[in-house]
Amino acid sequence: MATLTGNAIIGQSGGPTAVINQSLVGVIEEAKKTAHIQELFGARHGVRGIVNEQFVPLKAVPDALLARIAQTPAAALGSTREKPDADYCHKIFQVFEKNNIRYFFYIGGNDSADTARIVNDLAKQAGYQLRTIHIPKTIDNDLRVHDHTPGFGSAAKFVAAAMIGDNYDNKSLPGVKVNIVMGRNAGFLTAASVLARKSKTDGPHLIYVPESPLSEEKFLADVERVYSKLGRCLIAISEGVAAPDGKAWAEKMAENLEEDSHGNIQLSGSGALGDFFANLIKKKLPNPAGKKLRVRADTYGYLQRSFPGFVSKTDAAEARLVGQMAVKYSAESDIDGSVAMRRTDASKYQIETFLTPLETVARETKHMPPEFIADGNNITKAFINYAKPLVGPLPKVGSFDELK
Amino acid sequence: MATLTGNAIIGQSGGPTAVINQSLVGVIEEAKKTAHIQELFGARHGVRGIVNEQFVPLKAVPDALLARIAQTPAAALGSTREKPDADYCHKIFQVFEKNNIRYFFYIGGNDSADTARIVNDLAKQAGYQLRTIHIPKTIDNDLRVHDHTPGFGSAAKFVAAAMIGDNYDNKSLPGVKVNIVMGRNAGFLTAASVLARKSKTDGPHLIYVPESPLSEEKFLADVERVYSKLGRCLIAISEGVAAPDGKAWAEKMAENLEEDSHGNIQLSGSGALGDFFANLIKKKLPNPAGKKLRVRADTYGYLQRSFPGFVSKTDAAEARLVGQMAVKYSAESDIDGSVAMRRTDASKYQIETFLTPLETVARETKHMPPEFIADGNNITKAFINYAKPLVGPLPKVGSFDELK
Repeated sequence: MATLTGNAIIGQSGGPTAVINQSLVGVIEEAKKTAHIQELFGARHGVRGIVNEQFVPLKAVPDALLARIAQTPAAALGSTREKPDADYCHKIFQVFEKNNIRYFFYIGGNDSADTARIVNDLAKQAGYQLRTIHIPKTIDNDLRVHDHTPGFGSAAKFVAAAMIGDNYDNKSLPGVKVNIVMGRNAGFLTAASVLARKSKTDGPHLIYVPESPLSEEKFLADVERVYSKLGRCLIAISEGVAAPDGKAWAEKMAENLEEDSHGNIQLSGSGALGDFFANLIKKKLPNPAGKKLRVRADTYGYLQRSFPGFVSKTDAAEARLVGQMAVKYSAESDIDGSVAMRRTDASKYQIETFLTPLETVARETKHMPPEFIADGNNITKAFINYAKPLVGPLPKVGSFDELK
Repeated sequence: MATLTGNAIIGQSGGPTAVINQSLVGVIEEAKKTAHIQELFGARHGVRGIVNEQFVPLKAVPDALLARIAQTPAAALGSTREKPDADYCHKIFQVFEKNNIRYFFYIGGNDSADTARIVNDLAKQAGYQLRTIHIPKTIDNDLRVHDHTPGFGSAAKFVAAAMIGDNYDNKSLPGVKVNIVMGRNAGFLTAASVLARKSKTDGPHLIYVPESPLSEEKFLADVERVYSKLGRCLIAISEGVAAPDGKAWAEKMAENLEEDSHGNIQLSGSGALGDFFANLIKKKLPNPAGKKLRVRADTYGYLQRSFPGFVSKTDAAEARLVGQMAVKYSAESDIDGSVAMRRTDASKYQIETFLTPLETVARETKHMPPEFIADGNNITKAFINYAKPLVGPLPKVGSFDELK
């Protein structure tokens, strides 16, 4: 099949990452080089900007501005949480026809891949020539086929660095500290806190991920054991951590939680879960090791996904690459799909990209494999080996304890 | 008076900063060069380490380790919130006599300066030759005589960068976002969020500091006005913000707040205040501009004071400098005091250090001057001019809105 000539559209969807615009700029710079993409329209706020025809002509954007946009967190075109139904998709498709759009690039997670898949199927049914390429982004790192996703490395670097600082804060003024990390279903980001450890006594001392059910009894016994031994305890808890009955602690705790239009319950943007665990410790474990207990909680919140100037270089480069490759695949291949990465070398970190069918990315997500989790409260060396190259170098720190 | 020869002790006290160990290392490297300081003992966890004689011999620490410790957040010697009474100070003084300690360096805020002052007075009364030098650190920036304090610039850089990211996050997925910033009595750190603004529509759109009483009515009217105009609203609120009756909102809100041993109420280490303001908006302002309101809250928490690898270069250098100068002053001068900085040039940023009497630093703190605050919800150009050189360059970002 010959390469289609026509216009292209690109949109961004779902939660921000610190490198999502690297992918956008990757698409723009590659599209500028190609003949088969005539106009490249940027849709404002994802699918909403498509149906409303709110477009930014992206080939005309000056390079100097693109360079700054590439290192700006959060969707530069605007994002959306809207999940289009059949009617909505039909409208999208009409706009595509009207504007001779032959290429549809959609940057997002599994929900966005599903939207792309539905629009693509509609085009096929109508016999309308359309190439649909999904470009992955999610700090959750939970796409099924992808070794990892752009956005994760930078969020993981932020979490690991925050935990390094908090470990020294906690050493300096000992107590129990609870840190809530993003991750609704997958524990990858919370697990990244393990990268903060340099010595045996460094925190986080306990790491809880959604994949391991956590009972109140186990939690309190864990905290008491660590505190009795070290006189302090630093804890990383995923916002999606669940009780043994399978229900998320956040759900059990809250009475009036909001739901977004994907049926997801609001876990972020509130400090309630951290305070819940801190209060549990204060109430049920008031006096371990015979000392008055100092318990604090922080919720890392939106900083994890949108803190500027502190990205993983590997992550930024890979986010750019998957954008560039999306345009290359659109010319070379007559299949639609999601740009994925896989490792090509067992001895050192090296990746290649490939195109995976949209239906392998859409809807369902991936969980942490069992070999990454230990004892329901710890993360293994296998995860460290997996995550370290994605995060890159962390701030160098030191302690007088090293003199011992 | 001839320079005293004897041993020296150094301790760290109060909340962590990202550069507090720069000052510690400044003292160590300068002490290594001097003859009048024979041994330099590091007291573990401030005054507690003095009375328990838990010392680290600091002149023997290898330079390579010191280089790493200098860039490690939070007191490397350990900190304390203990405020010694007369008995306690007497014990400190006994340890000084026993170990021939003639120099007492204490890194901390106004509470630490007060401790230093009391110990110093006790020595004077006993006719014991002692030089007491307080070395300033506090992210609150609230010491009375000091133009600014080491630790503030780095915390301010973190807050400004976080707010830059959150501004783009909020543009990307519009809604109302409340961010709680540290600062019990002084609004300097919350005010630093203003540095995130590049264009007229950039957030934070509302900035509330403890110096300006805030009524529920004003708060809701402000939010409604901004949201109606921009379709979004990014808010920075100081943890110490007070109601018109002078009571902190955190106090009004909470029933079971902890107090530390200085009589300070626990404001940090909980997401409650942010959630309180978010819920207030949800409840009383459910539907401004005819749209369902998306309201989220983050509490920046301990990250502000202990995030590694993201310090202000100016702040780090000045923190080192005040440590070095403390040792120099101890040799040259027969007076005790706190090492302070003042600006020496109106046209460009330049500082010099001087020694100010301990009683000018102890106990009372400084507030934001009225010329830094506008309309009870904004921060002025005068503050921006004051704070910018302390924070240094911020991450470069860009938006397609610049094309308009």
